[in-house]
Amino acid sequence: MNATTDDTAPVPPFGWLAGAARERASAGLTRVLRPRPHDEDVLDLASNDYLGLARHPRVTEAAAKAARRWGAGATGSRLVTGDTLLHRALEDELADFYGTESALVFSSGYAANLAMVTALSGRGAHLVCDRLNHASLIDAARLAKAAGAHVSLFDHADPGSAARELKTARDRSALERRLVVSDTVFSVDGDLTDLPGLSDACRSAGAALLLDDAHGLGVVGHGGAGALTAAGLRGAEDAVVSVTLSKSLGAQGGAVLGPSCVIRHLVETARTFIFDTGLAPASAGAALEALRLIRADAGLAGRLRDRARALSTGLAAHGLQVSSPDGAVVSVTADSPDACTRWARRCAEKGVRVGCFRPPSVPDGRPRLRLTARADLSPTDIAHAVATVAHCRPDPPLISGRTPL
Amino acid sequence: MNATTDDTAPVPPFGWLAGAARERASAGLTRVLRPRPHDEDVLDLASNDYLGLARHPRVTEAAAKAARRWGAGATGSRLVTGDTLLHRALEDELADFYGTESALVFSSGYAANLAMVTALSGRGAHLVCDRLNHASLIDAARLAKAAGAHVSLFDHADPGSAARELKTARDRSALERRLVVSDTVFSVDGDLTDLPGLSDACRSAGAALLLDDAHGLGVVGHGGAGALTAAGLRGAEDAVVSVTLSKSLGAQGGAVLGPSCVIRHLVETARTFIFDTGLAPASAGAALEALRLIRADAGLAGRLRDRARALSTGLAAHGLQVSSPDGAVVSVTADSPDACTRWARRCAEKGVRVGCFRPPSVPDGRPRLRLTARADLSPTDIAHAVATVAHCRPDPPLISGRTPL
Ligand SMILES: Cc1ncc(COP(=O)(O)O)c(C=O)c1O
Ligand SMILES: Cc1ncc(COP(=O)(O)O)c(C=O)c1O
Repeated sequence: MNATTDDTAPVPPFGWLAGAARERASAGLTRVLRPRPHDEDVLDLASNDYLGLARHPRVTEAAAKAARRWGAGATGSRLVTGDTLLHRALEDELADFYGTESALVFSSGYAANLAMVTALSGRGAHLVCDRLNHASLIDAARLAKAAGAHVSLFDHADPGSAARELKTARDRSALERRLVVSDTVFSVDGDLTDLPGLSDACRSAGAALLLDDAHGLGVVGHGGAGALTAAGLRGAEDAVVSVTLSKSLGAQGGAVLGPSCVIRHLVETARTFIFDTGLAPASAGAALEALRLIRADAGLAGRLRDRARALSTGLAAHGLQVSSPDGAVVSVTADSPDACTRWARRCAEKGVRVGCFRPPSVPDGRPRLRLTARADLSPTDIAHAVATVAHCRPDPPLISGRTPL
Repeated sequence: MNATTDDTAPVPPFGWLAGAARERASAGLTRVLRPRPHDEDVLDLASNDYLGLARHPRVTEAAAKAARRWGAGATGSRLVTGDTLLHRALEDELADFYGTESALVFSSGYAANLAMVTALSGRGAHLVCDRLNHASLIDAARLAKAAGAHVSLFDHADPGSAARELKTARDRSALERRLVVSDTVFSVDGDLTDLPGLSDACRSAGAALLLDDAHGLGVVGHGGAGALTAAGLRGAEDAVVSVTLSKSLGAQGGAVLGPSCVIRHLVETARTFIFDTGLAPASAGAALEALRLIRADAGLAGRLRDRARALSTGLAAHGLQVSSPDGAVVSVTADSPDACTRWARRCAEKGVRVGCFRPPSVPDGRPRLRLTARADLSPTDIAHAVATVAHCRPDPPLISGRTPL
């Protein structure tokens, strides 16, 4: 195909996509959707349904009831017709659980992160972001930069590095506001950042702390109270936190929690709040019921973390390079994107589903299997999963440092 | 409160929000959430539930059934565990309805637009965007620009202006790809853009056409087949279209429809697809059922458009400044943000809910009431709505050009 432009016969406008697809294929980065049936028989170690609540009968019943009572959709922006007492009840329960003044629910965790970061920064702000932040926080920082914010990165989970970046900003007299932005539990390796350290760095610089507790809610701390409570930052007036309703709560949606003045500012200015349809009632109802179940069983999160540690220990005993889990996620390093794909595929053929994370889903470019524990995994499940993953490992590359054929 | 920075006593990091709130208040731009009960008794002319399907028993039952069968949430990215045969069935039905090769469902229309625009542009692309595009398309263009795309704007709904912008790009040899981006039906005034004109402009420049048919699906064209089919662009190989599942389909979510090579590219590269949890099964099931209902009743969209025209004619007869609707939306100009708020509030007190759109929700800064018709409005409903809106109009400003007290 001719890639140059010719005035008489323009190339088809999507002609370039074929070349892009070939490049991805030769780098081992092809991605294919594989829709699952509702009744498949696999041991699932890939989902983010950490507490097994997505299919809990009380949670699915709450979804069904909410759809019948409130309708299938919210019917508009929450500022127009999309706000219901159900959304309010969910927000009250979330704020109470996190010990914050207020909470605001969004259609997704992605939208919540875009809102939190963009609405609280803009011109005159200095955003100081962990290098390995989630894609939604990275996109948010890009939008903030487009709106005039100054953005800099600090070394992963390193409060000293964050403090140095904040210092840089103090010298810039044009920058009035400083904000540190980080995941609490990082989604790929499941490691917890140094929250007390980050908070100290913020406090000595008068900076705000914006945290994404997507993988901390229901997972970290006593009763799954989240990473902030576990770190002694419950209800901190200088912190704002986002959560998703799509992981341990088994539903869809996201929320931002913090001081009332922050939530009010989001309601009045955040574009992914104002210009987006409210969360579907079924998802709001399901998340609310899931949260109540978590609060009613303080042992759930602890059981989940035990299972994750058992998985990690078991895999390490097979000589695999495994992360040591702070939450529900265990990652296992693979030799190449291709080896990662084959490894995950072989596990699937043996009835064990694991995640296969390759660039750009791994911020540092290193491909790995991502296994997630669930609170309801039995010792037999764990032994079976460990044996399968170890057994299915592809042969190491013949020439070290090179990708195998 | 002291707004300057002091090294010994840092100001609270969110101290600046109070001043920002005061500024919004004095500009008449305060926004407040007013959660509705499930059984309120109002005539609703504010929602985007254009066909009244959000509460259709078959739609809510489909939501309930999907939650029970598939779980309350998708449990992960669609590339990991979040893809189900239900998502596939919805995509097949959407692609068939629009006559495209493929479709891809997202967690929201906002996410679909971010994906469509960013994944198909990037470095080397020239995005040519209607000045009044929806916020999600604007954010998408900002992200594309951050990734190296060149972005320019054309005059609202003016293909000649778009053609001139495209020409500018042809002179820039570094730009390999050109894309025109527009809403089909604009959300605030309900006006339809000149699609054949835009398509001609694209074709003579070898540019792709990216359209947001959020307010066209189920509304515009015979049987609500959407703005592309109505304009003779059904299945066009050089066009890509996004839709929402949150308006005429009464649910939540969004989709991008187009050639298979485009959809494959989105699956493999779009950040709001890869890094976002799949749409909740209840919303997917509801949208699928709603789409089937639309296809089973070819007269639904026509009835909706009749109601919108009746509303517009009735309001104009009262001397109000009213848009002439191409779809379901009718806008009525207000004198100021404050007058707009008071007008909508008075209507609500009389049992008629209308939208109140003020900056930044109106891209041109002019506040107006936004009324949406529904296919199931009776002649009595319409007469009552028209009389109420006309009666509740606030007094015009005393000094012309100035905001009233
Ligand atoms: C850390 C983190 N933040 C935000 C998100 C986005 O949340 P959601 O999928 O609910 O949009 C995800 C994953 O999807 C995540 O892993
Ligand atoms: C034109 C247009 N595009 C996209 C969206 C976003 O869709 P959603 O609310 O489903 O995210 C909206 C409204 O919300 C819209 O009016």
